[in-house]
Amino acid sequence: MMEIGMFGTVATIKIKEGNAAEFEKIATELVNKVNENEKGCLLYQLYYGEVPNTYVFMERYADQAAVEAHRSTEYFKTLGRAMAEFMDGKPTVQRLKQVGRFVGYE
Amino acid sequence: MMEIGMFGTVATIKIKEGNAAEFEKIATELVNKVNENEKGCLLYQLYYGEVPNTYVFMERYADQAAVEAHRSTEYFKTLGRAMAEFMDGKPTVQRLKQVGRFVGYE
Repeated sequence: MMEIGMFGTVATIKIKEGNAAEFEKIATELVNKVNENEKGCLLYQLYYGEVPNTYVFMERYADQAAVEAHRSTEYFKTLGRAMAEFMDGKPTVQRLKQVGRFVGYE
Repeated sequence: MMEIGMFGTVATIKIKEGNAAEFEKIATELVNKVNENEKGCLLYQLYYGEVPNTYVFMERYADQAAVEAHRSTEYFKTLGRAMAEFMDGKPTVQRLKQVGRFVGYE
């Protein structure tokens, strides 16, 4: 398997009924902070899907250092704790590595 | 919920034991074709994770037209059928919409 070390994360989060607005407020603050501060983070966006009360963070990092830099920020720790209050159980986190090197890989 | 119509897809695929090399060959061909041909597709990359024999496509599209353009290409249909032969059950597909508008949204 040809590996180039690019890392991805997909975090699927279920929230308690009726907490969408508060959760989104905190989650979007986190998204903004990451995009403003983390050059090694190539993608950090929040999505919602067809399943009610469920959100998905799609994330991509240039390398392991960028992953660790993200996780060590104060805002990630603080906003992560704040989001946890609205969660219905633990998030499902897929920690991923990119397969191979492709056209369009920036 | 403030919506800007940006679409994401996370497709998690389990493959039959011992088929990694063949599956990756076809899947990487698809990734290259998409990145070469689809301007409205902002992200189309293949990942593998901690779960054996499991792959994840992370995808992002500028709009619904880009989603439909992708699905109507000959190569998506042909390579999709070819990949299906190596799959262990149906893929789990999360069809997603981006929440709100963020710093760093290109």
